[in-house]
Amino acid sequence: MRSASPNEAVPATTPAASLVFTTVLSHGPITRTEIARRTKLSSAAVTKAVRPLMEIGYLVEDVGEGARRAIGRPANPVRVDGSRALFVGIKVTGDAIIAVLADLCCRILTARTVPLSGRRPAAVLADIVAVLHDLLTEADAIGGRVRGVGIAVSGDVDRAEGVVRYSPFLEWRDIPLAEIAGTATGLSVTVDNDVRALTRAEHWFGAGVGLSDFALVTVGAGIGCGLVVHGRVVSGAHGVAGEIGHLPIDPQGPLCYCGNRGCVEAVAADPAILRDVRAATGLPVADLAEALELARGADPRVRAVYARAGEAIGRAIASVVNILGPERVIISGEGLAAYDLFAAGIRDAFTRSAFGIAEQCDLTTRPLPFEEWARGAAATAIQSFIGSITLRATT
Amino acid sequence: MRSASPNEAVPATTPAASLVFTTVLSHGPITRTEIARRTKLSSAAVTKAVRPLMEIGYLVEDVGEGARRAIGRPANPVRVDGSRALFVGIKVTGDAIIAVLADLCCRILTARTVPLSGRRPAAVLADIVAVLHDLLTEADAIGGRVRGVGIAVSGDVDRAEGVVRYSPFLEWRDIPLAEIAGTATGLSVTVDNDVRALTRAEHWFGAGVGLSDFALVTVGAGIGCGLVVHGRVVSGAHGVAGEIGHLPIDPQGPLCYCGNRGCVEAVAADPAILRDVRAATGLPVADLAEALELARGADPRVRAVYARAGEAIGRAIASVVNILGPERVIISGEGLAAYDLFAAGIRDAFTRSAFGIAEQCDLTTRPLPFEEWARGAAATAIQSFIGSITLRATT
Ligand SMILES: [Zn+2]
Ligand SMILES: [Zn+2]
Repeated sequence: MRSASPNEAVPATTPAASLVFTTVLSHGPITRTEIARRTKLSSAAVTKAVRPLMEIGYLVEDVGEGARRAIGRPANPVRVDGSRALFVGIKVTGDAIIAVLADLCCRILTARTVPLSGRRPAAVLADIVAVLHDLLTEADAIGGRVRGVGIAVSGDVDRAEGVVRYSPFLEWRDIPLAEIAGTATGLSVTVDNDVRALTRAEHWFGAGVGLSDFALVTVGAGIGCGLVVHGRVVSGAHGVAGEIGHLPIDPQGPLCYCGNRGCVEAVAADPAILRDVRAATGLPVADLAEALELARGADPRVRAVYARAGEAIGRAIASVVNILGPERVIISGEGLAAYDLFAAGIRDAFTRSAFGIAEQCDLTTRPLPFEEWARGAAATAIQSFIGSITLRATT
Repeated sequence: MRSASPNEAVPATTPAASLVFTTVLSHGPITRTEIARRTKLSSAAVTKAVRPLMEIGYLVEDVGEGARRAIGRPANPVRVDGSRALFVGIKVTGDAIIAVLADLCCRILTARTVPLSGRRPAAVLADIVAVLHDLLTEADAIGGRVRGVGIAVSGDVDRAEGVVRYSPFLEWRDIPLAEIAGTATGLSVTVDNDVRALTRAEHWFGAGVGLSDFALVTVGAGIGCGLVVHGRVVSGAHGVAGEIGHLPIDPQGPLCYCGNRGCVEAVAADPAILRDVRAATGLPVADLAEALELARGADPRVRAVYARAGEAIGRAIASVVNILGPERVIISGEGLAAYDLFAAGIRDAFTRSAFGIAEQCDLTTRPLPFEEWARGAAATAIQSFIGSITLRATT
């Protein structure tokens, strides 16, 4: 089963009901007055949007135990009733599946990490189905029903079509993952780019709550970027957005797997750092952990490699900030383990390249483990679910 | 008088009335049903938004001469009554003021081009006031009332505060232009970045009509970019956005006036081209017209300079496309005069640097004379005016 097209689920003007739901999710318990203030909707529109969501039971009034306040009074705070529906969120990395079972509040009830039995679509799909059955059993035990699944994959993912068009780490091209996984499990499946899913989680629950414009930059095996502009995650007209890994920053730079020279990833992603540390030291450095150890041991040649990577990341961040002027840039990803080695390079290059007052943009680091990425996939499933519900209610 | 803050006039969720007004402006005459479809608002919300705008007379039903259709039927098309209010739009360049008198439909009634008597704020302000009085006299003759003025200036402009924070061409810093011009004329003045104002005009009336995500790239004395994301012009949290002129594309490139090396403007803006043509030929080339003549005469050294500039522009466009994934990129500006010399470089660099399917983004050229930029300033004034009206109506 394919998920609803995001153009349907999240139209140019997000339907009031979806907007109200996510506002309650992020800020609840919250009064209708405060919902109206935050969404800039009229009180009448908020009341109208809340009513059907309360009738279905997804929103409840938070009148408290033995409260004397009457149900239905506008001053009563409203919150999401997490127990009313369950969702599974799955993040696929190049090596493992991280899956979470979450409630309607997107709280993680339980999590699994399963190594991939292979990278070919059939192998990954079998692993996904196995972990899904495991979590469905868990859901049964709790007595809840799983209403949707979100799967987050790195690369070029077309959420509307449910297709992984190109994933470099998995070496996939044009895999209709939503349809295949939906057919195999009988569940409604939404797929999305993994950084976009994580950005959604940060917008709803993390360092992006209450911001209408921010960027999330992930550093690690690749360099990614999720964007929220005018209060909504940017997906791009063709499903490509936030691709800062291949910003051209140096025509004389190292060759990138995409065919160009001097992409940000060709200087600052994990494989590039490993390559440059080996070249700088002449040592058969086995992996990134060993490279990091050498840098921590104050080897100046290795520290210079990290400084150069930090500079490339800082230039990429400056490009995003100069183009979009976000309120905040959240820096995350496995690469955060080396952040002390990147920090000065990032800060210097950013300050140098940021145009005028854009330099005042707040740069923040946030460690976000893979479970949080899987939670982002669950948030995406919740968004599709609420989108389809409110669409049905209004048409 | 300062204009209302854009955060008030254009909140995260644009008030239905403003959205309905601009939809009628772009697409009218248009039925309420079609407005609802385009804005994704409910029919009830459209009807509610249209009513007060009709009562004031800004919207009228287009029942036609001798029509037998009754006023007030939902199937009747609605349009803006242009005659109900007049606006002045002003574009300030480094050498001249281009001013237009426009009606509420943003149709240009008359236009003026006046050379600047100087670049200092006092001189420019005197020129602005003179042209304003001229156009106010014109408005009187027509029997209309000017309800607002928009002034578009290149550089870092804070619309909310009405301040030109930094304009490199005018060498202005922190000039409270909206307040000064408002006090001098008794009119409500909105200032905005000039590329942003032009982007608004393209969104409402030009190659961006009906698109929710597009970019406008201007090539000439500087390299600028206006962005529409999720249906709204991007202003940036600190008022800086679309600054592609200083994207760092080559650490070994020429020094830029901003202090960095290898900015897009340091390679592709008019002064950079003139500098490089002089260096390549050893000739005392007087101006850009002469440089262009040499290139048209097929001087390969001069053509190479233009090709290199085109490549820098193509890389900048690819950066915007990779980050935002717009449906279309409109290329404009005085630099279009040399577009045949840029074209191959732009196309090659764009195709090479665009990531995956983002390459399918539509690149279009549009000659937009300075009057069109001034019209964008008038559109900005109309937006502030309608924003203040609908705010008053809903609070
Ligand atoms: Zn690349
Ligand atoms: Zn520069």
